[in-house]
Amino acid sequence: MTNPDTLLVFDEAVTRAGVEGWIQHLEAAGTPTEMYRLGGAHVLSVSDPDLIGAAGPGLPAPTHQVRRNSDVWLGRRELRPGGTEVSFGPTTIGNGSVVVIAGPCAVESAEQTLATAAVVAGHGAVGLRGGVFKPRTSPHAFQGMQWEGLDLLAEAREQTGLPVVTEVVDPEHVKRLAAVVDGLQIGARNMQNFALLTAAGQSGLPVVLKRGFGCTMEETLAAAEYLLLEGNDQVVLCERGIRTFEPSARFTLDLTAVALWKQRTHLPVMVDPSHSGGHPDLVEPLSLAAIAAGADALIIDVHVAPEQALCDGKQALRPQQFADLMGRLAPLAAGLGRHMSGA
Amino acid sequence: MTNPDTLLVFDEAVTRAGVEGWIQHLEAAGTPTEMYRLGGAHVLSVSDPDLIGAAGPGLPAPTHQVRRNSDVWLGRRELRPGGTEVSFGPTTIGNGSVVVIAGPCAVESAEQTLATAAVVAGHGAVGLRGGVFKPRTSPHAFQGMQWEGLDLLAEAREQTGLPVVTEVVDPEHVKRLAAVVDGLQIGARNMQNFALLTAAGQSGLPVVLKRGFGCTMEETLAAAEYLLLEGNDQVVLCERGIRTFEPSARFTLDLTAVALWKQRTHLPVMVDPSHSGGHPDLVEPLSLAAIAAGADALIIDVHVAPEQALCDGKQALRPQQFADLMGRLAPLAAGLGRHMSGA
Amino acid sequence: MTNPDTLLVFDEAVTRAGVEGWIQHLEAAGTPTEMYRLGGAHVLSVSDPDLIGAAGPGLPAPTHQVRRNSDVWLGRRELRPGGTEVSFGPTTIGNGSVVVIAGPCAVESAEQTLATAAVVAGHGAVGLRGGVFKPRTSPHAFQGMQWEGLDLLAEAREQTGLPVVTEVVDPEHVKRLAAVVDGLQIGARNMQNFALLTAAGQSGLPVVLKRGFGCTMEETLAAAEYLLLEGNDQVVLCERGIRTFEPSARFTLDLTAVALWKQRTHLPVMVDPSHSGGHPDLVEPLSLAAIAAGADALIIDVHVAPEQALCDGKQALRPQQFADLMGRLAPLAAGLGRHMSGA
Amino acid sequence: MTNPDTLLVFDEAVTRAGVEGWIQHLEAAGTPTEMYRLGGAHVLSVSDPDLIGAAGPGLPAPTHQVRRNSDVWLGRRELRPGGTEVSFGPTTIGNGSVVVIAGPCAVESAEQTLATAAVVAGHGAVGLRGGVFKPRTSPHAFQGMQWEGLDLLAEAREQTGLPVVTEVVDPEHVKRLAAVVDGLQIGARNMQNFALLTAAGQSGLPVVLKRGFGCTMEETLAAAEYLLLEGNDQVVLCERGIRTFEPSARFTLDLTAVALWKQRTHLPVMVDPSHSGGHPDLVEPLSLAAIAAGADALIIDVHVAPEQALCDGKQALRPQQFADLMGRLAPLAAGLGRHMSGA
Repeated sequence: MTNPDTLLVFDEAVTRAGVEGWIQHLEAAGTPTEMYRLGGAHVLSVSDPDLIGAAGPGLPAPTHQVRRNSDVWLGRRELRPGGTEVSFGPTTIGNGSVVVIAGPCAVESAEQTLATAAVVAGHGAVGLRGGVFKPRTSPHAFQGMQWEGLDLLAEAREQTGLPVVTEVVDPEHVKRLAAVVDGLQIGARNMQNFALLTAAGQSGLPVVLKRGFGCTMEETLAAAEYLLLEGNDQVVLCERGIRTFEPSARFTLDLTAVALWKQRTHLPVMVDPSHSGGHPDLVEPLSLAAIAAGADALIIDVHVAPEQALCDGKQALRPQQFADLMGRLAPLAAGLGRHMSGA
Repeated sequence: MTNPDTLLVFDEAVTRAGVEGWIQHLEAAGTPTEMYRLGGAHVLSVSDPDLIGAAGPGLPAPTHQVRRNSDVWLGRRELRPGGTEVSFGPTTIGNGSVVVIAGPCAVESAEQTLATAAVVAGHGAVGLRGGVFKPRTSPHAFQGMQWEGLDLLAEAREQTGLPVVTEVVDPEHVKRLAAVVDGLQIGARNMQNFALLTAAGQSGLPVVLKRGFGCTMEETLAAAEYLLLEGNDQVVLCERGIRTFEPSARFTLDLTAVALWKQRTHLPVMVDPSHSGGHPDLVEPLSLAAIAAGADALIIDVHVAPEQALCDGKQALRPQQFADLMGRLAPLAAGLGRHMSGA
Repeated sequence: MTNPDTLLVFDEAVTRAGVEGWIQHLEAAGTPTEMYRLGGAHVLSVSDPDLIGAAGPGLPAPTHQVRRNSDVWLGRRELRPGGTEVSFGPTTIGNGSVVVIAGPCAVESAEQTLATAAVVAGHGAVGLRGGVFKPRTSPHAFQGMQWEGLDLLAEAREQTGLPVVTEVVDPEHVKRLAAVVDGLQIGARNMQNFALLTAAGQSGLPVVLKRGFGCTMEETLAAAEYLLLEGNDQVVLCERGIRTFEPSARFTLDLTAVALWKQRTHLPVMVDPSHSGGHPDLVEPLSLAAIAAGADALIIDVHVAPEQALCDGKQALRPQQFADLMGRLAPLAAGLGRHMSGA
Repeated sequence: MTNPDTLLVFDEAVTRAGVEGWIQHLEAAGTPTEMYRLGGAHVLSVSDPDLIGAAGPGLPAPTHQVRRNSDVWLGRRELRPGGTEVSFGPTTIGNGSVVVIAGPCAVESAEQTLATAAVVAGHGAVGLRGGVFKPRTSPHAFQGMQWEGLDLLAEAREQTGLPVVTEVVDPEHVKRLAAVVDGLQIGARNMQNFALLTAAGQSGLPVVLKRGFGCTMEETLAAAEYLLLEGNDQVVLCERGIRTFEPSARFTLDLTAVALWKQRTHLPVMVDPSHSGGHPDLVEPLSLAAIAAGADALIIDVHVAPEQALCDGKQALRPQQFADLMGRLAPLAAGLGRHMSGA
């Protein structure tokens, strides 16, 4: 693996043959190079910047030359200043609209899943969340419906038309999950499970990468590189709270990280106010704040009967609370010059 | 000092004589009581709740009975569910409007102070900040213009009409500062300097109490009690970032605390996005997020020439950046059903 | 899965048949039960404690009855008050002696590995560490020699007689690694990679479980339950520093956790002063402090030429520094009434 | 105030007149200089290092030239490589011996204070602690016996011969306290109360400076500079736990900071295991670990009847527990090549 000084980014119109010309030019000079893909675009690493100017006129010009200044290469905003749009089924994340994905923390039964899906679809959500494999701190806690729950997610999608995202916890599960759902989620506890990142990157599906609660903003970008290196640029970063000394909420939501990600990476940013605060009363203020800080999307726990939830029910919004939140998000979006996705 | 089970809050119209009747009733039953003031209202502590029902018909009924559940007594929202309005010169903090206070981190010269004051007034700030005593981590750093700077603040107020707030660092300074400025600020490093809190509470001026960067949200409320116990209800809580493991910004802004304060206390809440992020590029997203999370006010560093600042210049907004921020805050406020103070 | 009030622990001499009698007794009463193994001992969960007294005289008496008070069941000290001894090749961890495991952070070459192994063996280490799969924050960093390195570890063991521990990062690697090494290590980033924990638990090898740098002491115990539930009681907890606001060292070593683990669990405790401090000058004081706090073992990075290391070389001890450390540990152990393992 | 590149440290034998020669030399060159005292030694700041070589032969040679690399000037170890010895009554802190200071968290009554003092003296403590002004998070909590308690401390000293240290919370109290006690303590909440630091520095008494629980190791050294700049080099740094995400103990004891302080400053280091852990069962392991990490002294809460304590009783050792701890410290000290102070 090279340790480049510079990355060259080519327009999507530049063919593989044109890029091969560059590779031959660089290798002829005795310097190694690596070729990456960022969506349809080719990216080349260059160890010796002087070779860029020495390229012949027959070689296609790069659209950007980006000098390396951290461990983040393919995810840096300079490579794609307009930002990345992620296609999550019919929903686009990263185009300026406010995207709300909602649903139960865990799929628990047909009734609960389908009823909750209908509620969130009816109030304007443009994606459905639902965990079937639940990574739990204690092995003695409910671990999710597992494969049985996957069919329920598919059924909920059929009834509502909403694309579905679910968490993956084992590299061996990726293919079977990817055959059904529209997006994969890497949970906070697995953000640095590099075997899982690589497998998820190879799925070709969009991936929601949750920040580890003990990991820095830059480490999250480095974890996203594991996905990007597999040729998958459909990555959404998700802030869901970090560990601090403050005991009043489950985690401390770090909206400074959201603002910095919007400046440093081209990847869209999501916020999970439900798992961050751990309390339904915190979901509305944290959701409004997240969108105002620049987040592209929210992912929100909703449950038709939180008091019966098998997992994290305490934090889920009831249907009316979710409706109220959506009613407050729309004018906020307008005040920011944005609009609700799907509206 | 009693350890009450219950606090009785009386309407402001209830006279001291009426409250004295309650005190006699309680003391006749052999239980100690304490009388507090919350603005114009009297508050009594009651150790034995049974005595409340046993009060004679001649005693005035309390408007609220609040059971104790933490160290926060006078600051709890139940005592004043409508919230407290703080009068900072002609500006009101806590009435639903969006208040922006701005100015230099430190008063450095007449030219810098008056020019900056004119800029912030011209773009819609309704209060002026400026430090004359600067508590600095290192004794080898600039400690502020001290008393000499105070006259400059007064002059800036005269030229702009903006009320002025400045930080107090020594109990012995309180009276002399209070004779000039419109509000006192207790800095993060002094949040648990209880001698200073007591002196500031006695000043009668509004006090901006900054949360210590290593202190919890509840400890901040407990510190505010030191001010409230002096009969001063003109207290504004200020979130300015906490210490976490995340190194990408100077501090991590805790907007979860802002949301919780709005639920748990009647005191208005301010956010300092400048000292929290430590970078001008973070001020706008953090300001928007703070207001969306429910903050009543912002306090923002502005400098006409940040590169020449003697203190924390790196984070100050330039005049045009401040103008841009104000231009984005107004439609955001509208999207939240609020308006800009002074507009 | 049951949610028991009480766990019954039986002596290792109690046969499966005796335990089956208890299961029949409990199921006849209509209450579910689960049977676990803790080393050679059987453990039963009991939902209704009244059924314990109602057991017939023919049933073997449990040696301990432990009431549930947290998510930690099998790892609680009450189940095995004398503590667990872990057999790592010929070395025993948890018998009161001071165990030092040392070696390179990463296996980089035959020369480096064998030379370092000889050094640490010569100065009294009783185990060899060496990473072949390196989980790296950045995909652009050296990822280890992988399978090629495994043979070098085996050769180093052959030359020195030291048992070998290496990190496992993928559930699919467990069997192939376990066929060669004497112990597996779960790294801090994978502490809550539950698929990996389960696979490692099934290996039958001793497992060093490193605490996640953003995880609590109790969450580490809950992660250990995933190993224990597979019938593997050969688990060593390893404190390696947590994330805090303090920037002067790489992590903040939490010896309070070490003291609490010694009180709350029967599993032995290891400390990694090298990765915690991130600097060779910190290894000696942190090692001495760890042993004084009650740790059973240390795991220390040593490199014959740290300036050439491909991974974390900055923190490795040079041979002489390691010799000096061992020379200080022996009298410290004596001062604590302990002795050096292998001495 | 100058911003020197270099500090010149002179031997204590160099007179003021000799130093004046240097000042004239530097000022003649048009560069400002500042003169400081570190114990009996003079220290000069030099902005232009070239002037050092240009000094005439008549000027006394400095013993050390130290180049500036942080905000810590007078406290840096290079200025006094052998370390500072602090004289606390007849007890010396910083001479390699293990110093134990013990006593009640708060002075509550004559009986409690005198009995506890007798206990700790009888078991080998060489100093007595006892708070009379207690800075409390909540104004509704016990604030200490205040001036009334001071006489009890004096009486306890008379009966035991132990020097006495107590906390000061208000600059106005310094003189009156200093007239009675042998050492002043600045509490964690006041570590950056710079008015108080300056007043305490001027007292001439030894000062125990507790690290703020949200402050870094380097910030503590910067706070110590406020004391040193007053000409008082009798300063002891005290680690008492920092705020982290770990909820199992009251604070997380940072022994990495202890190790770093021993490397970076000449000031002796104390550890408070009682307030750090917040539980008596943690005092022994944390005390042993602190001494092994290199701490010079311990300060420990002891109470003859912890269950009746008005302040922080939960963490105090009972007399027998204190005796047991002292019995374990002595052989540990021997194992480290040290001895118990007073033994």
